[in-house]
Amino acid sequence: MKFSPLIDQLVQGLRCLPGVGPKSAQRMAFHLLERNREAGMQLAEVLQLALTQVGHCRECHTLSELDICGICSDTRRDQHMLCIVESPGDVLAFEQAGSYRGVYFVLMGHLSPIDGIGPEEIGINHLLERVQASAVSEVILATNPTVEGEATAYYITEQVKARGVLVSRIAHGVPLGGELEFVDSGTLAHALSGRRAVE
Amino acid sequence: MKFSPLIDQLVQGLRCLPGVGPKSAQRMAFHLLERNREAGMQLAEVLQLALTQVGHCRECHTLSELDICGICSDTRRDQHMLCIVESPGDVLAFEQAGSYRGVYFVLMGHLSPIDGIGPEEIGINHLLERVQASAVSEVILATNPTVEGEATAYYITEQVKARGVLVSRIAHGVPLGGELEFVDSGTLAHALSGRRAVE
Repeated sequence: MKFSPLIDQLVQGLRCLPGVGPKSAQRMAFHLLERNREAGMQLAEVLQLALTQVGHCRECHTLSELDICGICSDTRRDQHMLCIVESPGDVLAFEQAGSYRGVYFVLMGHLSPIDGIGPEEIGINHLLERVQASAVSEVILATNPTVEGEATAYYITEQVKARGVLVSRIAHGVPLGGELEFVDSGTLAHALSGRRAVE
Repeated sequence: MKFSPLIDQLVQGLRCLPGVGPKSAQRMAFHLLERNREAGMQLAEVLQLALTQVGHCRECHTLSELDICGICSDTRRDQHMLCIVESPGDVLAFEQAGSYRGVYFVLMGHLSPIDGIGPEEIGINHLLERVQASAVSEVILATNPTVEGEATAYYITEQVKARGVLVSRIAHGVPLGGELEFVDSGTLAHALSGRRAVE
């Protein structure tokens, strides 16, 4: 016995959240029960609503409760540029940077044959249909600079190029404001090999 | 616009949890939506259940959905010893230490006149009724060693002593396994003034 059965269940339930261990879950449960029942009830409601209603945008596959998400349905966005990212969080990162006016395609993962995740599972067939059917003139690859992300980018490059569409990859190198001595050697080697002539 | 309205609401809702900022809330929302909808739904259900059903134990005031909590209703516990703590988490800490066999009284806070929290609000009237009515022979004060906790302990001491019942306070000092050089000076001064003759 730790607490009463229902409180134990609540503590256990909160542990499904990423980064929440037994101590944090306990603190969260007591916080809600002692001080913030109203907000807790609202959280329960929005959780149920979101988990039953949020699906994927028909165009870009990002998470959305709308059939077509806000970005895809925005007529001011440039439909000729298609930026490929791995997750909805990446879309947010680009939107916060603020300079991209094209549209996105969200893979919701990356190729990982060992886990049974092939091109179909990350919607590449749909991506290629879209490239062929609509007026996409440039596909910008912004998958993560990991082994899986690079492999996914390579696969997409091959497929898109075969359809005669320009493919580009976002630049990787030393981050702005970063100090060289704290940049890892992989990034530094990449930055060196990707150097550009100063005009 | 950040995400779709419902996802925004979910991210916002998760921020009612203590220690969860915008980035963590976003990570939690995506984790649940992408990978763990079932656990999320269970969390929503147990949240609603706990927030509507959990109240306070009639005897010790701890959080419980039962009218009388597991500890108070356990006939093997020594009803002569009553340990006063500030929160249900403190009860758990004692139970995990494992050496206490008496019962508890949970104040659910401490005296704080500036916030309008007087003796009534933390159930001291009920505590005194219990001390007088039942067979309590020792009241053990285990409020936190903070200004408010000490003030609360002092107030209870006065009231309980007036009713002819023994009052004790748990020992404060250098924690076991702690290294002296890392112990704060307040604790060290307290440990020194509270020294006991070695027998």
